[in-house]
Amino acid sequence: MLGALAWAQACLAAQDPLPSWNDGPSKQHIEEFVKKVTTQGSPDFVEPAERIAVFDNDGTLWTEQPVYSEVFFALDQVRALSPQHPEWKTTEPFKSALAGDMKGVAATGEKGALELVAATHAGMTTDEFARRVKQWVSTARHPKTKRVYTEMVYQPMLELLHYLRDNGFKTYIVSGGGQDFMRAWTESVYGIPPEQVIGSESELTFELQDGKPVLMKQPKVVLVDDHAGKPVGIERFIGRKPIFAFGNSDGDQQMLEWTTSGDGARFAGLVHHTDADREYAYDRQSKVGTLDKALDEAGAKGWTVVDMKNEWKTIYPADKQ
Amino acid sequence: MLGALAWAQACLAAQDPLPSWNDGPSKQHIEEFVKKVTTQGSPDFVEPAERIAVFDNDGTLWTEQPVYSEVFFALDQVRALSPQHPEWKTTEPFKSALAGDMKGVAATGEKGALELVAATHAGMTTDEFARRVKQWVSTARHPKTKRVYTEMVYQPMLELLHYLRDNGFKTYIVSGGGQDFMRAWTESVYGIPPEQVIGSESELTFELQDGKPVLMKQPKVVLVDDHAGKPVGIERFIGRKPIFAFGNSDGDQQMLEWTTSGDGARFAGLVHHTDADREYAYDRQSKVGTLDKALDEAGAKGWTVVDMKNEWKTIYPADKQ
Repeated sequence: MLGALAWAQACLAAQDPLPSWNDGPSKQHIEEFVKKVTTQGSPDFVEPAERIAVFDNDGTLWTEQPVYSEVFFALDQVRALSPQHPEWKTTEPFKSALAGDMKGVAATGEKGALELVAATHAGMTTDEFARRVKQWVSTARHPKTKRVYTEMVYQPMLELLHYLRDNGFKTYIVSGGGQDFMRAWTESVYGIPPEQVIGSESELTFELQDGKPVLMKQPKVVLVDDHAGKPVGIERFIGRKPIFAFGNSDGDQQMLEWTTSGDGARFAGLVHHTDADREYAYDRQSKVGTLDKALDEAGAKGWTVVDMKNEWKTIYPADKQ
Repeated sequence: MLGALAWAQACLAAQDPLPSWNDGPSKQHIEEFVKKVTTQGSPDFVEPAERIAVFDNDGTLWTEQPVYSEVFFALDQVRALSPQHPEWKTTEPFKSALAGDMKGVAATGEKGALELVAATHAGMTTDEFARRVKQWVSTARHPKTKRVYTEMVYQPMLELLHYLRDNGFKTYIVSGGGQDFMRAWTESVYGIPPEQVIGSESELTFELQDGKPVLMKQPKVVLVDDHAGKPVGIERFIGRKPIFAFGNSDGDQQMLEWTTSGDGARFAGLVHHTDADREYAYDRQSKVGTLDKALDEAGAKGWTVVDMKNEWKTIYPADKQ
């Protein structure tokens, strides 16, 4: 009997496209939605070309605490570039950045943040920037877990991306993070190719270097792909309204509103970080990934809110049983 | 014998993916290129994901003379909107536009052009704009041929788009035309979905109208997708360097330079308008679709230049034998 039971369980596991999700309401909502939009003859059937699914990145597909990973990248870049900038030792925000003094960096406000972005995300070609990001993601480690950042993606969300693609969906990232920063690694980690990654964008200029065309990254930001910028980014890049959207913070609220404003069946989901032991627990009071107004709207409109602690069996791929 | 010959010809035609192209150098270059990048084991083999092909639209996929079709659209919109704007009867560029006085419109220069764009391409939602474009392309007729504009696409280029897609390429439009203007009809006419149409873009704002989210088109232009703006648009939208590019004017020069700057096999093509009888003949002196510097560079670098008169059997789909 035991042998037959183990066999039956293995069969069930093989058939379950979302094995890292407990059988809670979120998993049920997702599966019901996918079933009704992909069943020929269903009143909610959606043609494959219109099966557009959009995902926030920070806090939705990977960990964003204690601060966005791209900030750690910028700080590491300041350290790497500092030998060419002796003046940084005495000028903010670089002085604090070099000292690892996060409070000092934060005290320089938006002006300081923009200077850090300009120093680490501009003044080089797109190829050189991609090379630096690739090097960083393969070596830098998260301060709490000591894992490389690309191992701090959420196993249940990887399964969800696969499950949607297996059902004819086209999966996109729509994130406030730097578009070029994400594109350097999203294909190998999430299976999402560069042309399906929408992020905040800086100005590019076309130049000839020794007769060879290059694109130079400029410090001017042309799209902040967050809050109301997300529907704008979606319209510019995709030109279709998604039918499925997942986020985790108030920065995703307008994306979820936009997605659910279309006709027919629509899915809106939020990852609620409720797991202080295995990941982090935060929502309304957090400065990073604030989830306040969107949580209220989710309650009022019946959006799916994933209780990470109770609904996810596994957080990170390496912890899989 | 005649029966057998006809049968053999029919078989050959069925096997020829580019039946509207004469057996000239351009057809040969295209077929050789596609063969070498798609043959497993070839030193020039390219993985399907990297088979990105980009096409200019005006003058490359459809007729752009005597002036870009989108200008006719704008003039028709001025006429349609004029009852709500009595002041247009006495103010330029609207006065000339309403009188059909193209020289008068041209005399108002860039300022006039921007005012026309603002009046006809902004101040409405993206949905409303798409509805207007769809209505226009289904009814408006070209001044010379009296055909609707979507019948003035080039049959040989339609075949080329199909041929590339059949060989695993992803086909994109990269045009100076309005992105929203093109997306309203490119899927049904070219088989190119909205997410593969890159064009000039205006600012969008996310707003709530009676509680429902909309995107409002603003008069401010955020990307002029022409000349050096084309490689910028390609990088922002695709994030990969194309291996195949087709244009017809100096506005495409940087796109062709960018495409051919990558490693491995690359294809750069220009449509040369040499057919005054069946279409138009123009190049260096034309104000619309000027082909001057890019023609020199094509000669110097061995880019493929299509002699429309001698290399295309058919221009428009309706003229097909």
